[in-house]
Amino acid sequence: MNEAIARLLSPRSVAVIGASADPKKTTGRPVAYLQKHGFAGRIMPVNPKVERIGELPCYPDIASLPEVPDVAVVLLGAERAHLVVKELSQRGCAAAIVLASGYTETGEEGARRQQQLVEAAGAMRILGPNTIGLVNLTDNIVLSPSGALEMDEFQAGGIGVVSQSGGILGSLLSRAAARGIGLSKLISTSNEVDLELADFIDHLAEDPATKVIALYVETVRNPASFRAACLKAARMGKPVVAFKIGRSEAGAKAAVSHTGAMAGADSMYDALFRQVGVIRAQSFSDLLDIPAALCTGRKLRGGRVAILTSTGGAGTLVSDDLGVAGFDTPAPDAATADALRALQTGSEAVLDRNPIDVTLAGLRPDLLRGAINALLASPSYDALVIIVGSSSLAMPELLAGAIQECLPNSDKPVMAYVSPHAPEVGALLTRRGVPAFTAAESCTAALAGMLRVQRFVAPAQDEEAPPLVEAGDLPSGSLDEAQAKQLFSRFGVPCAAERVVASPAEAEAAARELGGRVVLKILSSQITHKSDVGGVAVGLGADTIGERIGRMAAEVKSRIGTDAQRFLVQEMVAGGTELILGMHRDALGTAVLLGMGGVTAELFKDTTMRLLAQDAQDVQGLKPLSRAEALSMARDLKTWPLLDGFRGRPKADVEALVDAIVAFSAMAAQLGERLVEAEINPVFVLPQGQGVRAADGVVVLA
Amino acid sequence: MNEAIARLLSPRSVAVIGASADPKKTTGRPVAYLQKHGFAGRIMPVNPKVERIGELPCYPDIASLPEVPDVAVVLLGAERAHLVVKELSQRGCAAAIVLASGYTETGEEGARRQQQLVEAAGAMRILGPNTIGLVNLTDNIVLSPSGALEMDEFQAGGIGVVSQSGGILGSLLSRAAARGIGLSKLISTSNEVDLELADFIDHLAEDPATKVIALYVETVRNPASFRAACLKAARMGKPVVAFKIGRSEAGAKAAVSHTGAMAGADSMYDALFRQVGVIRAQSFSDLLDIPAALCTGRKLRGGRVAILTSTGGAGTLVSDDLGVAGFDTPAPDAATADALRALQTGSEAVLDRNPIDVTLAGLRPDLLRGAINALLASPSYDALVIIVGSSSLAMPELLAGAIQECLPNSDKPVMAYVSPHAPEVGALLTRRGVPAFTAAESCTAALAGMLRVQRFVAPAQDEEAPPLVEAGDLPSGSLDEAQAKQLFSRFGVPCAAERVVASPAEAEAAARELGGRVVLKILSSQITHKSDVGGVAVGLGADTIGERIGRMAAEVKSRIGTDAQRFLVQEMVAGGTELILGMHRDALGTAVLLGMGGVTAELFKDTTMRLLAQDAQDVQGLKPLSRAEALSMARDLKTWPLLDGFRGRPKADVEALVDAIVAFSAMAAQLGERLVEAEINPVFVLPQGQGVRAADGVVVLA
Repeated sequence: MNEAIARLLSPRSVAVIGASADPKKTTGRPVAYLQKHGFAGRIMPVNPKVERIGELPCYPDIASLPEVPDVAVVLLGAERAHLVVKELSQRGCAAAIVLASGYTETGEEGARRQQQLVEAAGAMRILGPNTIGLVNLTDNIVLSPSGALEMDEFQAGGIGVVSQSGGILGSLLSRAAARGIGLSKLISTSNEVDLELADFIDHLAEDPATKVIALYVETVRNPASFRAACLKAARMGKPVVAFKIGRSEAGAKAAVSHTGAMAGADSMYDALFRQVGVIRAQSFSDLLDIPAALCTGRKLRGGRVAILTSTGGAGTLVSDDLGVAGFDTPAPDAATADALRALQTGSEAVLDRNPIDVTLAGLRPDLLRGAINALLASPSYDALVIIVGSSSLAMPELLAGAIQECLPNSDKPVMAYVSPHAPEVGALLTRRGVPAFTAAESCTAALAGMLRVQRFVAPAQDEEAPPLVEAGDLPSGSLDEAQAKQLFSRFGVPCAAERVVASPAEAEAAARELGGRVVLKILSSQITHKSDVGGVAVGLGADTIGERIGRMAAEVKSRIGTDAQRFLVQEMVAGGTELILGMHRDALGTAVLLGMGGVTAELFKDTTMRLLAQDAQDVQGLKPLSRAEALSMARDLKTWPLLDGFRGRPKADVEALVDAIVAFSAMAAQLGERLVEAEINPVFVLPQGQGVRAADGVVVLA
Repeated sequence: MNEAIARLLSPRSVAVIGASADPKKTTGRPVAYLQKHGFAGRIMPVNPKVERIGELPCYPDIASLPEVPDVAVVLLGAERAHLVVKELSQRGCAAAIVLASGYTETGEEGARRQQQLVEAAGAMRILGPNTIGLVNLTDNIVLSPSGALEMDEFQAGGIGVVSQSGGILGSLLSRAAARGIGLSKLISTSNEVDLELADFIDHLAEDPATKVIALYVETVRNPASFRAACLKAARMGKPVVAFKIGRSEAGAKAAVSHTGAMAGADSMYDALFRQVGVIRAQSFSDLLDIPAALCTGRKLRGGRVAILTSTGGAGTLVSDDLGVAGFDTPAPDAATADALRALQTGSEAVLDRNPIDVTLAGLRPDLLRGAINALLASPSYDALVIIVGSSSLAMPELLAGAIQECLPNSDKPVMAYVSPHAPEVGALLTRRGVPAFTAAESCTAALAGMLRVQRFVAPAQDEEAPPLVEAGDLPSGSLDEAQAKQLFSRFGVPCAAERVVASPAEAEAAARELGGRVVLKILSSQITHKSDVGGVAVGLGADTIGERIGRMAAEVKSRIGTDAQRFLVQEMVAGGTELILGMHRDALGTAVLLGMGGVTAELFKDTTMRLLAQDAQDVQGLKPLSRAEALSMARDLKTWPLLDGFRGRPKADVEALVDAIVAFSAMAAQLGERLVEAEINPVFVLPQGQGVRAADGVVVLA
């Protein structure tokens, strides 16, 4: 555990630089909130114009502080913050929280100021700038002027929150409190000139009070350390849930201007999160809902959900939404139905369905307990959602108590859907260990998140990487098609057989040698869209290719004025499924992309990506994908059934496809930045046992 | 306006049959709630065992009631309800609300009881059974035992709600009240033995207090009257928003067991709603959010949204979600930026972006007003979302007042996103005419709903229907492929040229006559999957077809033992896009289905449907689709670009496709129930000017 971060989150003494004596001012709030929420350590306000703040002596400058503070909250503007940061560092302060804005998020001048701040900090750690600070709910330490801290009490609990937006921190803090959702730490990292997401994920992974980590992400500045921190959290059994802004171009632009950070493609974040076991919250409300469910520590082992209700409509809502997400809501098995029936005195409950309607349950705790226990014990169900209707509102304590008593009998998830407006009932249930939601979509998201955590398998560490390939002789610039395929072949991607020819006679010989029908293509590193300029002809034989080569040269000449010197004669590949295998690189790293080929799949954007793992210590060192990752890519495609025998098609050679993806990824990993662009389009996946063939491709080398 | 429904919703006198003197009992609540919420008319409890309920005399039976009630609330169980219903009807009561359950939703015995109830009612109207009753908020009349009525006050307003679930009624009532969303009437129709959705839509369309109609739908029992009522509401300028359960199989099953109603396919509801201008709420929360926005009466004319914020993160959230839904959030134009800059005293506001961050606005009402007015006046924006951050919470009245003052200056939509937990601020804003939301998705759904209302065009009444086709000579049962295509042709769908042949010589003659390459198919009304049994051969010429026909006969014989007698020789259609054109019929009506052909599109389920309009008076009389509807179907397809020149493809003959869809729909309309099954698969859409060709098809006639 990093010592400075530990002191930042749990300081024994805090200096507040630029503190005002007026608690209504932003600069007056940090001292006021520290006191209000019961900070037990020493508070040292610094302000040359003020003598005392309440009972506290106020110091004129940093030099006169009676002790070295663990943490300083710097309330000065951007034009002066770096000066005190330098002094604090020199006195040996562990960390400073810099609230000022006016840095990279405002443009070049701000970026210069931010650099100045880094230099001033030296060995001292910085949170911010442009941050709203942090709140340690575990220990009642608030280092923030956020208006959300006006609340008298917050709910301490197991969710550690790291947010790259300050305003969002206040929103999460107040919304969680209102819902009875307990938090451990909230940290706003904002501009991340020093301390960043990964530092706090790493810390919270070891924090005993934290069970789940929730992230509000605008950008991941350091993917390698983010990856390492998330995998550490997974090893420690602490799920990480992230809401990431920037799903649309508008949002991505807004996020960039908000913190001044470069963002990667949103689909790259999907890939990164998935590979390191981070659950992506699809909506902002999911960012509290999913952690609230995970925080119970209960385990979801399958997708079969019992819904216990005393009000028909709301149960149907939940059941419908679960169904859309692929969950099952089977009717009770015979033994469970019998157990439920035994609880009903003289009633004619219909128990052939789910939602399970136990009309009396809301009113009689013994019946409610009996029904809950029967459903939790049933082998037919993996989780239970209890519908809270108006009839239960009259006695919330009784309701919550009855449910809570059943929790120790099983570790299956139990949650509540509160149908009428009754926030206090929801908060009570949540505090008692039964996360309560007011939207069917929240129940579904929570259960889906739990299932994903349970099913995450960390990437294997021990898979042997493919051997390095001799690549010292590679040229620079755009390769022509033949060179590109030679490169793919060298790394182990099977390519269609082909010959480079320069004359009709050579073409005829090549066609004879390859046998069967062949394809003739113009060969040039300059022309990328060969068919657009008349540079592709298919289905030729040795008898016709000689004549065709002359016509092709003439057509290309007439269309774009180029004298075609060389041509490619290639075997015709038939009977396979066309895919695209490519590389994508942006601020987040280098990824392999797999997509279904053909115009229809293109309209549906049926592609998937996986990032190549980067070592946090050696960001140049990329690792190829594992076979398991490669297979999961193919299975990700919505058109995966086309490879898997859909509608009587032959099953495709998926083993060979996996080999090809791994080989392609090894090429991208070994060549690193030298590989500027690489795409095989199409690669044909032939029927089982017949392999794959790269039929065309592009490579640009630096 | 229906007289009985008007009396049901606004009675001057109410009899409560089976009323208890204990207001805590369900049977005690209706009288208690009528009094609590200030019913001005006469309340007449009926119960032979009780003399008085508070100040009210209680009557022993219906005969002894001192006047004929407008409405009776029947609190008796299913075994006795029909008896009092009969008496009430005989005394001339306008309508009875039957709360008992135990009818169709419980099975056969219940269905019998429900029939008994209908017969007992005679001319009197029935709401229910299995209903929770209704609430008329406009006039403070509550005819319901719903626990939600424990609240002291509700918010009267412009949203009329009709729900097929009673529990949901209480949920909507309490949730709306908490959020400051005003309702006019809430009616729970449940089993709909008599009065149903359409009756209340029709009524609310004329109700002066109702501006928007919100529906919670489990099933539409009478599509023709539903259609008529929704189109009437559209004509009256009252948008209808519906949340429909049953998007998943689980939900559909739950809804059926809940009210015992048959449901149609969910995609049929999509089609129906769309065709009659009903906005489909995608989540339950949308069912309040969208009406709350529509209720303001403000108009959204385009998709460009200004976001005004004083807290970065939350504005980004909203902007991101709007972007995902296709809304634009452009930066301010120069004039607007100047106007905004003029408001900022000495600040360096960055106004090249949206969300528009006016840091001071939250604190100074004059600046806030200035910014709102500038954005509403800007020609760059169609709507405004104001982000409410923690800083505005200290002075909610000031905030709400400032926004409210700007509303009369424009009719563009203005809404608020409240970032911290502050329900009272949201409710205040909503009551002041600024619908406030706590989820970015709600802002998006509300704006998307407003746009759809603005863009709805009611189906034209005056389009000339295609002339009737002579169809008296049609056989019954499965048609063979040639007969099916003759039927399609008769109604005006162009089919591929073809000849029926029985010998090699006939086949050769047919191939010569058709010219070019042809397709040979076995012809039989028994064999539907011809290619699976070796019954299809493509690319044949007159020289080879004679030999092929013998081989095909032999192969089919060897595979399924059938002696093939007849074959089809058909021109080969090439160069077009393959579509599927079919008919679907279920409880909701008869629809035409259009889908992209081919295995990839099938995986993406790229299909769309339109219901044929039914006359409410003559449910047998179906109308063909209009050309506009047919075109909108083609444009609905995700693969529409394939028809529209995607990636340099030739544009398809969409005019001819529209003709074919209309022709197919005319066939379905005219043949009605006689047409059991009909599908053209594939129909080729050729390049512009070349038409379409039905290449294969199935028809089953009753």
